[in-house]
Order: sequence, then structure tokens, then C-alpha cells
Amino acid sequence: MKDAVDHGCCIVLANKKPLTGAYEDFQNLVSNFRRIRFESTVGAGLPVIASVTRIIASGDPVSRIVGSLSGTLGYVMSELEDGKRFSEVVKTAKSLGFTEPDPRDDLGGMDVTRKALILARLLGQQISMDNIDVESLYPSKLGPDAVSTEDFLENGLVQLDKGMEERVKAASSRGNVLRYVCEIGSTRCQVGLKELPKDSVLGRLRGSDNVVEIYSRCYESSPLVIQGAGAGNDTTAAGVLADIMDLQDLFQKPA
Amino acid sequence: MKDAVDHGCCIVLANKKPLTGAYEDFQNLVSNFRRIRFESTVGAGLPVIASVTRIIASGDPVSRIVGSLSGTLGYVMSELEDGKRFSEVVKTAKSLGFTEPDPRDDLGGMDVTRKALILARLLGQQISMDNIDVESLYPSKLGPDAVSTEDFLENGLVQLDKGMEERVKAASSRGNVLRYVCEIGSTRCQVGLKELPKDSVLGRLRGSDNVVEIYSRCYESSPLVIQGAGAGNDTTAAGVLADIMDLQDLFQKPA
Repeated sequence: MKDAVDHGCCIVLANKKPLTGAYEDFQNLVSNFRRIRFESTVGAGLPVIASVTRIIASGDPVSRIVGSLSGTLGYVMSELEDGKRFSEVVKTAKSLGFTEPDPRDDLGGMDVTRKALILARLLGQQISMDNIDVESLYPSKLGPDAVSTEDFLENGLVQLDKGMEERVKAASSRGNVLRYVCEIGSTRCQVGLKELPKDSVLGRLRGSDNVVEIYSRCYESSPLVIQGAGAGNDTTAAGVLADIMDLQDLFQKPA
Repeated sequence: MKDAVDHGCCIVLANKKPLTGAYEDFQNLVSNFRRIRFESTVGAGLPVIASVTRIIASGDPVSRIVGSLSGTLGYVMSELEDGKRFSEVVKTAKSLGFTEPDPRDDLGGMDVTRKALILARLLGQQISMDNIDVESLYPSKLGPDAVSTEDFLENGLVQLDKGMEERVKAASSRGNVLRYVCEIGSTRCQVGLKELPKDSVLGRLRGSDNVVEIYSRCYESSPLVIQGAGAGNDTTAAGVLADIMDLQDLFQKPA
């Protein structure tokens, strides 16, 4: 990709991996901002990166981004509020096609962490995956190295029910709900469960929609909020096509 | 402005009036899409026009836009839910600096209608202000031609309390709230009060934030939502500056 960009080609990405390796690789690609777009790497077609870029371009410093960027974990956490068991909800999510074939790929938080890293780097943080504090929803003793997918689904998941139920109840007793969020400040980046007020934008989230809250000088007390479907073939493809149209505008000869 | 654009100049607008006159004038200006930007005409710096334009560019047809695009009327309608009187709420909004010097400039809906017209024209509707169905929150017998601003504030407003209270109660009995919204479909455009479920995005809106829901093929059942401060010097100026940066990108010589 670096070679392609250096030869004057344009790149539009939906794949997060090329942007989440070494910081230098990210910087080398993205510094060619007239030849690269990657909206669909975060929230599919939702205009998250376009909006963050616009705010930064306007000279309005972004101080914080908080987001629920996994439709799968958004669905799971909102279902738990109704008193359902964690193991049940994860199995239902799997049967609805919301999870990866091995749900641990979602529950471990790596997908959210990649999105968080792209946003953190957009805000100027020169960090890598290793620098992000990530909370996995399963312990390493139930990880893929120790337990097969089938065994995890049959016997592993139920071991997590009690702990999760207690956390949901404790949050509820304080008028809060649990959400699996990424939180990016000017110098830190965290991914994991967070207690949030029931009547906040993130607390009210139901189903598999993504939500991103952007705080800046202009959006200080009340954030800029972008919400909608953050996954799916259609919206991902639409995001890629919008990026292509955006890039081609840059190269049209002015009339 | 048409002359300036024809001479190759670029234009960035925060003023809605040049885009809400005759349809031909709008078309003449906006057809030069490489030389005009007008994000701050709708929702100040909120990326509403940028997002609608992105969705249209991606080939995803926008079927409907519903928005609360007046911070003033958003504040007024959400305060009424707590049982406050309409006349009181409007006077409080005026004392907080949320309204124009004559609050009828807000209550009549003209400002929202101009924003709705710009969005409707973006969606391809070849309409003018006259074609939009607008509900004013005061009758013509209390209009500026009949009653002075002072008289309206002292004696006119209270005449509206009973009717508004009844509408708020009727909506509440159905689990709904009233919001002053614009609704733009593929062939129609309406501005006025609408009953909406309490727990919808628009129904949950409090205070003076703007909200826009965009429905398209990709965002069919669950819309793309953009929410945040839609007025204020800072965010309007930031929107104008982001537009200027966006335009200058188009004219930089590719390396």
C-alpha cells in the first residue's frame, strides 16, 4: 500500500489492519491525505472519520471521543438489562448472525480496540495496539489456546453468568447501565465495560446500532453525536463508494 | 454570488437566504459544487449537509429526513412536557437569549422552513418556500402586522397557553410528546408540530440541541442520526472554516 501511494495511486480501505500496525506505517499512509480514505474502518458507512476530520480541520480541538463501536457487544449489553443471562444472550446473538463464528473474537474486544486505535491516531496519539488498556469479557483460562469454540459455548460461557449478573445489578442500583465502549482522550485510550447513566445517549442505546460522541471546544458540555447501523455489507460498501467519490473530486481539473 | 462563482471564485455560506430564493438561483449556485459549500446554513457546524451529500454520492437514495432544527423551539417543546405554561417557557427562552428579539420570528417557523427547503432541494425537490406546508405557533391575528412585540409578550402569548396545554396533554395520553420538526420525503416537505413517541430519538431530545434523522436504503429501519449544538457563534464559524478547508483541498496541485 505504501508503494502504491508513493506511486501516486489512491487507496480506500475498509480493512482496519493496515492502519493498526506500527505507528510509522499508519503515519506514512495517512500523511498522504489526498490519496487515502478509510471511513468504513470505523462504524462502516457512518460519517465518523469524515466528521472528526472536519472538526480537526476547522481548528476545533477534539478533547474526547466515547463510542459504542461493536454492534455485537451493543446488542449483548443492552439485552442484559432485561435480566437475561449473559450466556443466553451471547448464544442468541450468535444464532442471529451478529457474532463471529467464535464469539470470543467479539467478546475479547480486539475489533473495538482496532477502531479505537485508528481514532486515537487521528487525534494525534502516537500509540500502538499494545498501549491500549483493553478489558476482555472472558478470562484467559477460557481463551482459544485453552478451550475449543464448542467447549466455550457449551461449558465456558455459563461460568461468566454470575459475575456479569452482579456487575449489571450493581450498575442498575446506581441508576446506570453497562456499555462496552472505547474512550479516547488527548493522551489515553481505553476499551472495556463502563457504567453509564441510563438516560445518557450511550445508556439509551438498544440493539446493534453504533454511537459515537465527540467532545471538542465547540461541543464541550453536549457532544456531537453520530448514531446508526455500524456494520453490514450495504453500509460498508456505501462508505467505500463515498470515499472513492470524495477522492476523485480532488483530482478533477477545475473548470 | 452567481457572478462570483461564474468568474471562478469559491463561496462559503452561513446565510440561508441566497439558497432559499427562486429554485433557478439555488440550482445555478449549487451546480458549481466544486466552488460552493454551505454546511453552516443547517444546524451550524453539525455535519448534516456533508453527511447527506456523502450518502447521495454513495448511490444510497435518501428517502426521508426528519429534524428538529431550531434550538429555540426544541427548548420550548421539551420544557412544555414538565407541565410549564407555553407563555412562561417562551419568556424564559427569551430571557436566556435563545429567541430572536421578537420571539415570533422563531415561533412562526420561517427559520426552520428555510433549512427544510435547503435539505429538500439537496434531495432533488424543485420547490420553493411557497410549496412548504408550515405550521406557525401563533395565529395571524397575533402577527406583527396586528400586534406589537411588547403587546404580544404581555397579552398575546397567554392566549396560546390553553390550546398548547391541551395538545401536550393529548399527546402525553398516547405516550407521545410534541416536537416542532421538519419532515422531508421524496416529494413533500412539511414544517410544524408532530406527535412523536417519548422514547424515540426526537422524543428524548431535551434542551436546545438539534437532531437530524436520515433514512435511506442503508439506513431504512434505523436512521442515521446526527445530534448536537446547532447554533452559536463558535460552531457556526467552525463549520464555515471546515467548508473553506474542504474547498481549498480541491484546488491544491496533486503532488
